[in-house]
Amino acid sequence: MFNFDYFTPTKVAFGRNTVSRTAGLIREFGGKKVLVHYGSGSVIRSGLLKKVTDLLDEAGIPYVTLGGAVPNPHLSLVYEGIALCKKENVDFLLAVGGGSAIDSAKAIGYGVANEGDVWDFYDYKRKASGCLPLGVILTIAATGSEMSDSSVITKEEGLVKRGYSSDHGRPKFAIMDPELTMTLPDYQTACGCTDIMMHTMERYFTNGGNMEITDAIAEGLLRTVMANAEKLKKDPKDFNARAEVMWAGSLSHNGLTGCGNDGGDWMTHKLEHELGGLYDVAHGAGLAAIWGSWARYVYKNCLPRFRKFALNVMQVEPASSDEDTALRGIEALEDFFRRVGMPTSLRELGVNASEDDLSLMAHKCAVGVNGAMGSARLLREEDMLAIFKASV
Amino acid sequence: MFNFDYFTPTKVAFGRNTVSRTAGLIREFGGKKVLVHYGSGSVIRSGLLKKVTDLLDEAGIPYVTLGGAVPNPHLSLVYEGIALCKKENVDFLLAVGGGSAIDSAKAIGYGVANEGDVWDFYDYKRKASGCLPLGVILTIAATGSEMSDSSVITKEEGLVKRGYSSDHGRPKFAIMDPELTMTLPDYQTACGCTDIMMHTMERYFTNGGNMEITDAIAEGLLRTVMANAEKLKKDPKDFNARAEVMWAGSLSHNGLTGCGNDGGDWMTHKLEHELGGLYDVAHGAGLAAIWGSWARYVYKNCLPRFRKFALNVMQVEPASSDEDTALRGIEALEDFFRRVGMPTSLRELGVNASEDDLSLMAHKCAVGVNGAMGSARLLREEDMLAIFKASV
Repeated sequence: MFNFDYFTPTKVAFGRNTVSRTAGLIREFGGKKVLVHYGSGSVIRSGLLKKVTDLLDEAGIPYVTLGGAVPNPHLSLVYEGIALCKKENVDFLLAVGGGSAIDSAKAIGYGVANEGDVWDFYDYKRKASGCLPLGVILTIAATGSEMSDSSVITKEEGLVKRGYSSDHGRPKFAIMDPELTMTLPDYQTACGCTDIMMHTMERYFTNGGNMEITDAIAEGLLRTVMANAEKLKKDPKDFNARAEVMWAGSLSHNGLTGCGNDGGDWMTHKLEHELGGLYDVAHGAGLAAIWGSWARYVYKNCLPRFRKFALNVMQVEPASSDEDTALRGIEALEDFFRRVGMPTSLRELGVNASEDDLSLMAHKCAVGVNGAMGSARLLREEDMLAIFKASV
Repeated sequence: MFNFDYFTPTKVAFGRNTVSRTAGLIREFGGKKVLVHYGSGSVIRSGLLKKVTDLLDEAGIPYVTLGGAVPNPHLSLVYEGIALCKKENVDFLLAVGGGSAIDSAKAIGYGVANEGDVWDFYDYKRKASGCLPLGVILTIAATGSEMSDSSVITKEEGLVKRGYSSDHGRPKFAIMDPELTMTLPDYQTACGCTDIMMHTMERYFTNGGNMEITDAIAEGLLRTVMANAEKLKKDPKDFNARAEVMWAGSLSHNGLTGCGNDGGDWMTHKLEHELGGLYDVAHGAGLAAIWGSWARYVYKNCLPRFRKFALNVMQVEPASSDEDTALRGIEALEDFFRRVGMPTSLRELGVNASEDDLSLMAHKCAVGVNGAMGSARLLREEDMLAIFKASV
């Protein structure tokens, strides 16, 4: 066990009709003038945005709105939000949507609460000393940003995608009504489930520090997400299954499933990051397409964990050797991915990558991690390239 | 699934030498003048108290100290603490110890932050609108008070023991170094493990609302506590086992293992409460002594849960009927209690209760819960008496 900090201050209001508590929660956390920040038109079409602004109107809480947060949210919109908040004296942010709206709102919050260019934080130049308080109404279960300390922003100039993590950015509250996720298309639901699983798996496949209780929680969470992803494949309107996945999404990335470990592996995310930079692919699907190749490349260096995963998460029959048991677990997870419509190769992802592209992605990935990274196995550029090649 | 709120704002600093972070954490949460509140002489004898005050001296943070918090902490000491805080302009509380010191400090915090008699809150007369900020250095893994919203105080006049729960009382930070629990006697360690398990079991044995993910977490936590309680029985100095139990203690009672349920059963706690009022017994041992009799009395009314507990927690072989599987689970847990030196009857607890005492306890318990309580099975006074009689 390594020492760890655990800090999840976000107040979660979970369940049906919890959106009705929006104004009360904003007041509870001191909000007097709100920026309602959202993404695409889906929250307009569904009527959610109008419902939220009606609630604010009724409660007499003044607000301004800003839409347009896209997947891999853009820095230019963040700047726009910061300027709007300053002009309108906004003291509270309300993100309505999924990870894009939340991450964009976090960045706006850093920009308002700190002097200078907000990109400095994402550029690792300095640390934020605060963030405007932020509430969330979640409509997609996937990124876990509603309880996490992290946000990812893309600077359009050079398409630089960077993450910044700070406890200051953890939302004050998160309203989570599974009903709001009912209308997600199957593909996006499966992508979300994959992303949720990967947040815990990145923490699980590590060499050292693992705690029994953390493992038990992680394994239970992964089994729950898989069981309910399959239920949602059959019946996307299954409220209880939506609830299981939604709550798993928050717990998977708020720190709980990594307590005591060495910080996690995170190389599947880093590799997918490069895929997402070069091709227009959904994050969850990209993770699924890469994971099997990563796992086969690294498992021998992290065998006890892959064996445990095979037995306790994928619940395979033990094979005659630990290596074979581990491989059965990897295969079983790939089978699961296929059953819920996720790709297990770049081809299935719809990506036809040239040798040059693979090399470029491996090179950019290696540069991005300062040469080498990974806990299950330390990966360098040649390893990254080998994994990309195996994933074709 | 029922709607739920989840709010665990306590910043946990877990692991070796985390006590060294005391002053920094007090500063982080705005403390300028501290009341260091502790219990018995053990934190003096171990040198922990001196270490803490030395750290405050070094950091230039002024403080006053108040010892004397006992198990079932007394209202008179709470009043003393409130007066001391007001006189000394204390703005931050630091509890050093186990549940007694923490619960006492929470009550002091309510008393300083609110006008009027602090007992009003414990007497259900009104609600606290705030609490002095509180930090914890935990030395006993048991009550979970370091992350929970609850505290229990005893008014000496009439020996009235009452609990009060409020999010205002949740500690700002908790420093948890498993090393600090190394010297606990075996009996107290086993009592702590029982208390930890019961906090989750009270939430587990319910009729309705259960979520798969909450169950998986609860079951994993219970298996972890049992495995490590047995390790500590063999080697009380096993650091990793101490760490597993310590972290389980916080997670067991911070709300995580009850998300989505109907609020829990809590009757084993209520019955033990009366035992503890009449006899001088350790809380954890009292819970173990009662639980089996409670379980056999209620299990048919909550059969799916007892069956699931038997299979997933106690990991028994399924019997030919669900009833028998449930009974196997109950027996297996009693076997565990015996293996770690916990009683499974009043006699083993060292209590020789007369018929009159049993009737008195059942009556007081029924009055205390306004006539009837329980989710696994609704219990009235006659049921409570039957359980007490069966537990002799």
